[in-house]
Amino acid sequence: MALTRLTRTTLSIATRQLRQLSTRTMAQLVEPTEPTVVTDSVPGPASKSALRKLAKLQDTRAALFVGDYTKSVGNYIVDADGNTLLDMYCQIASIPVGYNNPRILAAASDPHMAVALANRPALGVFPANDWARLLEDSFVKVRPAGLDMVFTTAHGSDANELAFKAAVMHYARKKRGVRGFTEEELVSVMDNKTPGSPEVAILSFSLGFHGRTFGALSATRSKALHKLDIPAFKWPRAPFPQLRYPLDKYEAENAAEEKQCLEELDQILRSNPMPIAAAIIEPIQSEGGDRHASAEFFRGVRRITKEHDVLLIVDEVQTGCGATGTFWAHEQWELPTPPDMVTFSKKMQAAGFFHTREMVPEQPGRNFNTWLGDIPRALIAKAIVAEVAEHGLVKQVNETGAYMLKHLKPLAVRYHRVVTNVRGQGTFLAFDCPTSEIRAELLQLMRNEGVNMGGSGEETVRFRPMLTLTKAHVNVFLTRFQSVLNKLYQKHWP
Amino acid sequence: MALTRLTRTTLSIATRQLRQLSTRTMAQLVEPTEPTVVTDSVPGPASKSALRKLAKLQDTRAALFVGDYTKSVGNYIVDADGNTLLDMYCQIASIPVGYNNPRILAAASDPHMAVALANRPALGVFPANDWARLLEDSFVKVRPAGLDMVFTTAHGSDANELAFKAAVMHYARKKRGVRGFTEEELVSVMDNKTPGSPEVAILSFSLGFHGRTFGALSATRSKALHKLDIPAFKWPRAPFPQLRYPLDKYEAENAAEEKQCLEELDQILRSNPMPIAAAIIEPIQSEGGDRHASAEFFRGVRRITKEHDVLLIVDEVQTGCGATGTFWAHEQWELPTPPDMVTFSKKMQAAGFFHTREMVPEQPGRNFNTWLGDIPRALIAKAIVAEVAEHGLVKQVNETGAYMLKHLKPLAVRYHRVVTNVRGQGTFLAFDCPTSEIRAELLQLMRNEGVNMGGSGEETVRFRPMLTLTKAHVNVFLTRFQSVLNKLYQKHWP
Repeated sequence: MALTRLTRTTLSIATRQLRQLSTRTMAQLVEPTEPTVVTDSVPGPASKSALRKLAKLQDTRAALFVGDYTKSVGNYIVDADGNTLLDMYCQIASIPVGYNNPRILAAASDPHMAVALANRPALGVFPANDWARLLEDSFVKVRPAGLDMVFTTAHGSDANELAFKAAVMHYARKKRGVRGFTEEELVSVMDNKTPGSPEVAILSFSLGFHGRTFGALSATRSKALHKLDIPAFKWPRAPFPQLRYPLDKYEAENAAEEKQCLEELDQILRSNPMPIAAAIIEPIQSEGGDRHASAEFFRGVRRITKEHDVLLIVDEVQTGCGATGTFWAHEQWELPTPPDMVTFSKKMQAAGFFHTREMVPEQPGRNFNTWLGDIPRALIAKAIVAEVAEHGLVKQVNETGAYMLKHLKPLAVRYHRVVTNVRGQGTFLAFDCPTSEIRAELLQLMRNEGVNMGGSGEETVRFRPMLTLTKAHVNVFLTRFQSVLNKLYQKHWP
Repeated sequence: MALTRLTRTTLSIATRQLRQLSTRTMAQLVEPTEPTVVTDSVPGPASKSALRKLAKLQDTRAALFVGDYTKSVGNYIVDADGNTLLDMYCQIASIPVGYNNPRILAAASDPHMAVALANRPALGVFPANDWARLLEDSFVKVRPAGLDMVFTTAHGSDANELAFKAAVMHYARKKRGVRGFTEEELVSVMDNKTPGSPEVAILSFSLGFHGRTFGALSATRSKALHKLDIPAFKWPRAPFPQLRYPLDKYEAENAAEEKQCLEELDQILRSNPMPIAAAIIEPIQSEGGDRHASAEFFRGVRRITKEHDVLLIVDEVQTGCGATGTFWAHEQWELPTPPDMVTFSKKMQAAGFFHTREMVPEQPGRNFNTWLGDIPRALIAKAIVAEVAEHGLVKQVNETGAYMLKHLKPLAVRYHRVVTNVRGQGTFLAFDCPTSEIRAELLQLMRNEGVNMGGSGEETVRFRPMLTLTKAHVNVFLTRFQSVLNKLYQKHWP
């Protein structure tokens, strides 16, 4: 009875607070029409003070500013100083449908959410009775063609690592055939030695990024600083095409470059000293500097991996969930046979990988962990998928992206000393700066003007807006961008 | 304005639903005084039917039954058939203070939770303005002596992997001194080759378990099936003492065994071909079969690692958060110098590692990822820490554990064919069965009698109740346990 009374009290307090929030929300949560920066630069003094405090407990040296997520709304992030910035970086490409999106807030405030948060099951041992239904209402609604099953994980690195595990177990089963494990395998594995712990590789591509835990990091080739001093498996790297822009001008050179890369891939799969279980590739190399390749190149990758009986994992952690103009970027390749696994995270706000039934290991409990995902995050993903569908956000991304590209291209002519190689799909756009120093200066000036943007690779500026970006937001961006470009020109090329 | 109206509508629906839940909760959520099993066995037909449906989307072969988490309460889990089981397994040792605990439900229903769920920040780049305060109110309140900082992660494997990364980067800095990275390092690392990707090891102990992603799994030595067919780093394994029970009878043998293990550890640290950055150890080997060692042994491990300038990581993923009778199990060792890192997850319902400032890499962004933890899980951890403190649950664990141990020991005499080696700290108790088949039979019979329990290692039964277990719950368990032991005796030794 004490418990019952306490439950009543606490839930009634929560109800009252929610009503208060609802009242406050009505007063505040209207998306502004333009940014406002009230400090001399971003971060301002309140951000800096909060970061100094936080630095006692965590490493804050990569922080740009401190967010006030109660006040952020739609495409605008509000910081600790009260600056309101148009957000085109979106928590490293991971906010899909706006800050404090009403549908997401409603899902987050639903009593089912509270029960899910308060009672976290080990989903592989005691799954919740509504788990299958929730999977149907979230991930299954957007599963890529040919991939019936979904393995839920905690984040993008986790998704890739567990896909790698599925791949190497699949490889071993294929090689082993019907015989069981040998005594030698059972003993050697406890010492991390062959044949129980085999030498088998995941192939990845130059400048690819697949996460930062040990397995994922062995496939990551983005930057030395991501990898230095950390042991890595001796897994091979194939070349990713280095295309020249504009694509229509360099059609022949680019086709030759892609052909050369495919030949090298074929050569590595043919002759790598360590057997290769799977290849992993991003549809657009994101952390590596927004590097693109043609649909034909990716069809070639699928054809060659098939020829060598090597699995293909498409890493859609950053490209997935609509930003490239299709829900999954690899839909644009029109593959004759689907990839074997597709990993996701970031804008899905929940992580995992889609896979064929063949990727399930022969014995239970082998690709396994305690939580195997998180129901609250799946509830959020369900709301995201519904929001994208209801508002036709993938179509909107195409329209907004085309508008943005149309206006960026002339700027690359007019301000060619700063803006080159404008490229992208949907609103997943980018351009290159001449140096990383100029890029840093540009990004800082943009923040000071009220637009939050990010870099990728060494000299690239990447656009990672939400799917809810409209032409009006693009206009706001363009005004600030031109102003910043003029400032850069005045300073460096007066 | 459309957004504002939608926000108002959705939040008002949520408020109404929450009020309804609160009403339903008052009617339902009273902890029962004993289990009820309404099906012939567990899982019953409703669980089986739900699992068949789920099997189309996920691998369900390790599932025991399907939970109804809306109806589960306190120490009792309710399944899809309406069976109500006393839960002494608790989602693989990860429910701390009871299903639908009112304080946790209140934290989960708080408007701050909804905002946190709807606006997931990249905490390393745009931390929330209340993040430092939340860290103070959650993890910092229970941080182990000597470890000032806390790195937040997604789960236990993640915590260990990121602690390993901190360790190998610390090792490299120590070795490198003041010089920067060499050109050879910068180039070789992109091919996963030395010296950029160095050969450096994390030492672990026989039958230790540290997670199942590639780095964590290279330190895991629990079972072949956890590791087979998956590439592993050639990291060394030191022996963990194999103690004999009862401890007071075998005092001399056990002391000799521990001394021998420490000597072997010293030998490995002295002569391992690959340099060793850190050793990782569990206070009680949990997945490996509830294997214990004395405080003196662990003091020896700390002394020897210090002598060899090797970091010590204590893995408290399963032992942490009170179940062993101190908040962290390693507190019981009375170490002269603290470990360098302590990892946690499971009952904290949030994961990470505590560490000294020396574990922060020299350059920013090197031990890094997009989300770096999850604010909602930290809000839950805050409520857990408050609940444990307010109700004196660590003290209660000691009292309940002592009571349980007192009653288990005579059963090990009376039913010695089934129950041997009764052992443990707090309520983190265990015993061994003669075979894995007898254990499987015992666990199934216990579920059929309404008590959910789990195994560890090959033949061990582990108790992983919540911190809220009382003597009354123990009595409920003991009645069912004796009944099951009688059944086993009647069948096997009539």
